[in-house]
Amino acid sequence: MSIRFPRPRHLLATALAGACLALAATPAARAEAPQVRTQVPGWYRQMLGGFEVTALYDGQIMLDTRILKNASQADMQKLLARMFRNNPTATAVNGYLVNTGSKLVLVDAGAAGLLGPTLGHILESLKAAGYTPEQVDVVLLTHLHPDHAGGLTTADGRAAFPNATVHAAQADADFWLSEEHTRKAPKGMQPFFRMSQASLKPYVDAGRFKPFSGEVDLLPGIRAVSTAGHTPGHTSFLFDNGGQKLLVWGDVVHNAAVQFPRPGVAIEFDIDPRRAVAARRHVFDLAETGRLLVAGAHLPFPGLGHVRKESTGRYEWVPVDFAPIVPAAASVPAAPASR
Amino acid sequence: MSIRFPRPRHLLATALAGACLALAATPAARAEAPQVRTQVPGWYRQMLGGFEVTALYDGQIMLDTRILKNASQADMQKLLARMFRNNPTATAVNGYLVNTGSKLVLVDAGAAGLLGPTLGHILESLKAAGYTPEQVDVVLLTHLHPDHAGGLTTADGRAAFPNATVHAAQADADFWLSEEHTRKAPKGMQPFFRMSQASLKPYVDAGRFKPFSGEVDLLPGIRAVSTAGHTPGHTSFLFDNGGQKLLVWGDVVHNAAVQFPRPGVAIEFDIDPRRAVAARRHVFDLAETGRLLVAGAHLPFPGLGHVRKESTGRYEWVPVDFAPIVPAAASVPAAPASR
Repeated sequence: MSIRFPRPRHLLATALAGACLALAATPAARAEAPQVRTQVPGWYRQMLGGFEVTALYDGQIMLDTRILKNASQADMQKLLARMFRNNPTATAVNGYLVNTGSKLVLVDAGAAGLLGPTLGHILESLKAAGYTPEQVDVVLLTHLHPDHAGGLTTADGRAAFPNATVHAAQADADFWLSEEHTRKAPKGMQPFFRMSQASLKPYVDAGRFKPFSGEVDLLPGIRAVSTAGHTPGHTSFLFDNGGQKLLVWGDVVHNAAVQFPRPGVAIEFDIDPRRAVAARRHVFDLAETGRLLVAGAHLPFPGLGHVRKESTGRYEWVPVDFAPIVPAAASVPAAPASR
Repeated sequence: MSIRFPRPRHLLATALAGACLALAATPAARAEAPQVRTQVPGWYRQMLGGFEVTALYDGQIMLDTRILKNASQADMQKLLARMFRNNPTATAVNGYLVNTGSKLVLVDAGAAGLLGPTLGHILESLKAAGYTPEQVDVVLLTHLHPDHAGGLTTADGRAAFPNATVHAAQADADFWLSEEHTRKAPKGMQPFFRMSQASLKPYVDAGRFKPFSGEVDLLPGIRAVSTAGHTPGHTSFLFDNGGQKLLVWGDVVHNAAVQFPRPGVAIEFDIDPRRAVAARRHVFDLAETGRLLVAGAHLPFPGLGHVRKESTGRYEWVPVDFAPIVPAAASVPAAPASR
């Protein structure tokens, strides 16, 4: 060790050598900068042709592999370790705000206060991203689970998006909003029916809940794609503008580390696990063959990326790179030693 | 298709069906929300034991595979396509701000105005992250290239971090700051020597540039790890606190899509490509076997993650998940139908 700093002259100084360097590094006594300990606001933006897409972070929730089926716990722990994730797995809840230029469209609204304090931040994220809830024209719900529909409504039962019309698949409305299905459901599931009903109520009451059926165009450049199974009407939305496509796929994946390599793994919340698995396989294939940009409600925030199929047949998630909203123009094609 | 919306009654209405739905979705005529088209501020934070680590985005620059060697262009294009990246590849420039609780330490300072307008945003990012340049006590440079040292100094030649002492490896100082080496260098490389000299000047003049030699402890919990080759004194920094470790590895990787699967690929800017390749292999092995958290100056922002070795022997980059600064406490271990 040969350094230019003053050398320690006795044992204590040797022990404190690092600290001495630190002191030498400070030209004058100044207050220490306190740690800030905040996180960057929960939004991320990119263009899709002329559509502006903003990922909104609602928060995260811990999911245990005990609620996953069709693979051994040992296999799933190995898959988590391979991705440097723990069990339970911190799992994002994302919404997507698309400004088409004429309509402001939100896909999924987060959980609000329904699932605890680690979720419910989508309105904060939306405001930080430069919008107001009053500006939202349309809310598209991939399905009526509380971490997607909860944020529609304030704690005192008012519409969080006072000017928005809400669309979801008829099959999900028929299931979750039905008194009959609610009464027939296992006791443990009934709160989830009640949460859906409460979340939709101000929109239903105002005639602003409008279910759709089938794979329809909901707005120019926005098409419903059925991915039913997780719930009876679970729907993905295909955004298409300027030759670019984005599939907002909702709950096609809950645990990225496990379900990309094992698409056959279902989750306890799947109403029809067999159909949910088939939908996942179908959408993986669609995304992979079309090299589609994908957005997932529970993929690591911002949840934007692509699906790769390995030569082994195994799927992998490839997140997009953080980038400015306007791509860089500068180029260092062949200059020497610039870095 | 069976939807609840009013059905179109004539051909024009059929053509405009999507638009009609959109109109139906708007309860009253309101101004369209203009697209915001800004990006979230360029910082991201996580704790490392009691150390607070903030990744700072300086910007991105385009790098062409023509400046990479030891693999065919065809192979590299395939590797880029596999990661859904283009050529030239948008490449991040990241710095890392570590608040140890007693010292505010910045690793690398970005490019300032030296390499064009797509870089030079690190001070903006630092301020957005809740700090001021005056609070920075120590700047550690992985090496003296302009995208790492440029941000030390303002356009008019003043210290951008007026209270900071700057440390870099003696071997890099001896190379880049030497008049003899500058004169001997190829004409095309001379500007890079001059940029290093100008960037360091206010600190050298003030006696606040203090090179180190060898793998020394620079501050308690911060150790220099030699990764020479890219430049003669290229250094990584190992942060160690509360049983957690972070290796800020500088320019060990320039193109993640190419160099994780092909660690033997060198870049034109490597002063000693053979040694740079050896350092990359050594550090990949170190990071993989120790399951180290890694930060890379040119990894996709925030550039934090882990290195995985596949059973094929191939390395992969696994970025961290976006998460709140305090991990979520809520857990849904086995409740039915919560999503």
